[in-house]
Amino acid sequence: MTVTFTADDYAHRMRRTLESAASAGLAGVLVGIGPDLAWLTGYRPTAVTERLTLLVLTPDQPPTLIVPALERPDAAAAPGAPALTLLDWYDASDPYRVVAPLLRPAGRYGISDSTWAMHLIGLQEALPGTTYHALSVCLPMLRAVKDEHELTRMAAAGASADAAYGEILGARFAGRRETEVAADLAALLRKFGHEQVDFTVVGSGPNGANPHHEAGDRVIENGDAVVLDFGGLLDGYGSDTTRTVTVGEPGDEVREVHAIVRRAQQAAFEAVRPGVPCEEIDWVARQVIRDAGYGEFFIHRTGHGIGVTTHEPPYMVAGEKQPLVPGMCFSIEPGIYLPGRFGVRIEDIVTVTADGGRRLNNTSRDLAVVA
Amino acid sequence: MTVTFTADDYAHRMRRTLESAASAGLAGVLVGIGPDLAWLTGYRPTAVTERLTLLVLTPDQPPTLIVPALERPDAAAAPGAPALTLLDWYDASDPYRVVAPLLRPAGRYGISDSTWAMHLIGLQEALPGTTYHALSVCLPMLRAVKDEHELTRMAAAGASADAAYGEILGARFAGRRETEVAADLAALLRKFGHEQVDFTVVGSGPNGANPHHEAGDRVIENGDAVVLDFGGLLDGYGSDTTRTVTVGEPGDEVREVHAIVRRAQQAAFEAVRPGVPCEEIDWVARQVIRDAGYGEFFIHRTGHGIGVTTHEPPYMVAGEKQPLVPGMCFSIEPGIYLPGRFGVRIEDIVTVTADGGRRLNNTSRDLAVVA
Repeated sequence: MTVTFTADDYAHRMRRTLESAASAGLAGVLVGIGPDLAWLTGYRPTAVTERLTLLVLTPDQPPTLIVPALERPDAAAAPGAPALTLLDWYDASDPYRVVAPLLRPAGRYGISDSTWAMHLIGLQEALPGTTYHALSVCLPMLRAVKDEHELTRMAAAGASADAAYGEILGARFAGRRETEVAADLAALLRKFGHEQVDFTVVGSGPNGANPHHEAGDRVIENGDAVVLDFGGLLDGYGSDTTRTVTVGEPGDEVREVHAIVRRAQQAAFEAVRPGVPCEEIDWVARQVIRDAGYGEFFIHRTGHGIGVTTHEPPYMVAGEKQPLVPGMCFSIEPGIYLPGRFGVRIEDIVTVTADGGRRLNNTSRDLAVVA
Repeated sequence: MTVTFTADDYAHRMRRTLESAASAGLAGVLVGIGPDLAWLTGYRPTAVTERLTLLVLTPDQPPTLIVPALERPDAAAAPGAPALTLLDWYDASDPYRVVAPLLRPAGRYGISDSTWAMHLIGLQEALPGTTYHALSVCLPMLRAVKDEHELTRMAAAGASADAAYGEILGARFAGRRETEVAADLAALLRKFGHEQVDFTVVGSGPNGANPHHEAGDRVIENGDAVVLDFGGLLDGYGSDTTRTVTVGEPGDEVREVHAIVRRAQQAAFEAVRPGVPCEEIDWVARQVIRDAGYGEFFIHRTGHGIGVTTHEPPYMVAGEKQPLVPGMCFSIEPGIYLPGRFGVRIEDIVTVTADGGRRLNNTSRDLAVVA
């Protein structure tokens, strides 16, 4: 059971954001449509268009949401709206001139990563003395540490993805297209409570060696290793888990590579505890794979933060010195990709606890055999 | 029947883009993930993430696509890839330093509207002397005039949306939630060939007075006016059509307001011919509604261009002097919104021909009565 976030909760998040901004020497924070806006206000417009929607958080006035006039009723109905002043603008007028008076002419602002470049340019032209930093760069820890109610949602999303995996193991793989298994996975995520499915990777045989392959027309064959990587949003919070299965009994090489990836994933998980720098999690996983002689085939970072977005700080990547803090949630997902042959990846979402880590995905990491 | 776009077609589009950029005094064009990238290269990554993907078009080197290393196989499989040089970057490295050597240190560049602000900031920091303009502002006509093969796709998308409307008229409205009718509409768009459904507005009774209301839990009642506005992509090109229906026989006021909107839509359509400025299309529709005494209740522009995106230049809006050109495709969608009561909107996609306009939506604009 999850509690509903109230206008007070959103007001609290906005206050915290302003405090963080002040500590970082920013004059304020600007947030376009996207996960940051959803997190700060509960407002999720159904479409992202060229019309400007922008939350302006500064110490100089109450939180203000600039919205297209025709979308004002939707914005006014958002759960965080009681904590917001709404300012609207009409087609044929210049929305940046509505924002400009709210900003300091030479202010430094954080702006949400996925705000459209056209809007940033509009602001820079309206106020040439202002400067901007991407929110994930200037306030990377803003959403990184989840509170109790957020952790409940993250755990529910993980359990739902686990249930979907449990059921897909009983599905037929051999002789069906990847896209058909992907459609099954999407339906299972929805069946187990996801309101949004963001990705259902089914990478069979050589396609598994392409880490971001989604799902294609390839017909899955007996003997294939198949990478299953799937997730979406449940109650606004994300899931993201990967298991690699084989159709029929695995060959020796798949079995060996899988065992290495599993050891790497386990070692990285065991390294999780407060104070450990993120890059160490990456290093631990990478070292296992390097020692086994497959270093050049692990071609991505070990993990990414997750919350109201699938990818967010902190990143488990070389160079990231940020220490782990209880309440952080992130993926641990080492992989080995043998071009033209097969790939193996194992991924769990993990949250940092007072004395270690807790997996939010708890299905077996054994190499499962499907039909 | 549509032809498949080839690498030559994409190469041609990229050359044309560079020529337009040169005419506009730009040193080149930068394109992030989104409709412009799909139009220029056929590459449509399934996920838009924080990892930089950027097409760089300049006269100084062949078209170059910067991609995350783990997504290189997907990029290499795009239909336009033979016309591209791929440059990849790995996690833990700085992608903007891969882009920087391709740009002139003091160059002026166009950048696609929906490129993430974080990437624009990354470029501005890597090359502080460069300046940027939103592509829809500096090259607004880039995708506006559709060629023969694009028009075939636009007409197919319109016909599919029309077929969906024809069938939804037979559905039950009274006693069902808006979301249920919206789900029917989405299924019908898919049934008639759409590969993507972008919006299914079902605005019943007072919800119809909120132009961007999507669909909610409201149970549709006998006597309601219901705004149905739906569309998506078919073969990569967009549909967007609106009809307003009534559940049972309409009252006098709904009938009167509908007749006014219909006259406005018809008048604007009849004003379409090459050389007419876009703003005149808006003015013609607005004048009909103003003359009928409802001017203050028509709270948005009259239309927007459409193609690989639902909203794109040219906009039918006050102040837009751009003359119409044969091959342009845009919506004509006047509406009247009576807060707390009901709304009426009628929308067709129209393309400009040598001597007038041609509707790509051809269902009846009579006020239909549903059950």
